[in-house]
Amino acid sequence: MYGYTHHKDDHLKRLRRIEGQVRGLQRMIEEDQYCIDVLTQISATTRALQAVALTLLDEHMGHCVSQAIAQGGGTADVKIREASDAIARLVRS
Amino acid sequence: MYGYTHHKDDHLKRLRRIEGQVRGLQRMIEEDQYCIDVLTQISATTRALQAVALTLLDEHMGHCVSQAIAQGGGTADVKIREASDAIARLVRS
Amino acid sequence: MYGYTHHKDDHLKRLRRIEGQVRGLQRMIEEDQYCIDVLTQISATTRALQAVALTLLDEHMGHCVSQAIAQGGGTADVKIREASDAIARLVRS
Amino acid sequence: MYGYTHHKDDHLKRLRRIEGQVRGLQRMIEEDQYCIDVLTQISATTRALQAVALTLLDEHMGHCVSQAIAQGGGTADVKIREASDAIARLVRS
Repeated sequence: MYGYTHHKDDHLKRLRRIEGQVRGLQRMIEEDQYCIDVLTQISATTRALQAVALTLLDEHMGHCVSQAIAQGGGTADVKIREASDAIARLVRS
Repeated sequence: MYGYTHHKDDHLKRLRRIEGQVRGLQRMIEEDQYCIDVLTQISATTRALQAVALTLLDEHMGHCVSQAIAQGGGTADVKIREASDAIARLVRS
Repeated sequence: MYGYTHHKDDHLKRLRRIEGQVRGLQRMIEEDQYCIDVLTQISATTRALQAVALTLLDEHMGHCVSQAIAQGGGTADVKIREASDAIARLVRS
Repeated sequence: MYGYTHHKDDHLKRLRRIEGQVRGLQRMIEEDQYCIDVLTQISATTRALQAVALTLLDEHMGHCVSQAIAQGGGTADVKIREASDAIARLVRS
């Protein structure tokens, strides 16, 4: 059980919508639609993916990280390090 | 005919791989995989999308924008404005 | 006393270097240096600023957020929410 | 003479304001201000830097790149390649 388990359906719904956006991008390319319109859709898809990531991260901190800290011991440091690394990857991607 | 038309197959191949990554994300959520691993995959997917965007933009400037500038007249300004706006959206997404 | 207090000198040193980079950018503009070279320097400065932010955030989670969680009570939720919002601002900036 | 030469004063004014923001960040660290408030200011400074970059890039394309394309010959390709690389650095920073 992770932090996101309670909102699994919500995440899946958003990811299925993103899958639809990526298929829409393929259709745009196949139909030779205008480059700038394709770029606009890519930006929207990227933002949607980042929104999922931010929600997952928020739930992860409120659940897994919090639990590790509350239990004390060395796991907390590992969890915080992991979260920091994930944040750095998100900021740089 | 746009700048990307010559590399249509390449773009479609990359977008289909991204679609596969998004479906992989759904599977990870369904199988309750660890949040941090899901976040790592989202970062990879975001970077793959941005790489497609950067290639499209490069081809757009080398083709549509260049053509408009070479032909002279007011279209060039419109094309440059459009490209600048698309770049701003990419940088901010 | 916050998480970053122990590394205050390090943060100040990095921020003074960033201040130097921003003054360098002004000099480049004053001396009419090539736009692309100015842009390269701006990207380097942005990355340096983000690196400071990621370090501060890491220390903040390892200290302030951890402390609030360890103490229990409602403060922990507030701290996690604050951190999540700060992360979202970083990812989107 | 580059594209940005006509707006030199405007760019310098914005960069001096950004320099002030970076000095403000140092003051915040020196005065042990709250980490989250420091992070908010870093995000604002990053966005201000990116706004300068986007303006410079827009002027660069409307001036240097356009001129190279209008003159024809191999320089145009070099300029477009340079601009694409600068955009990629901005998107990834």
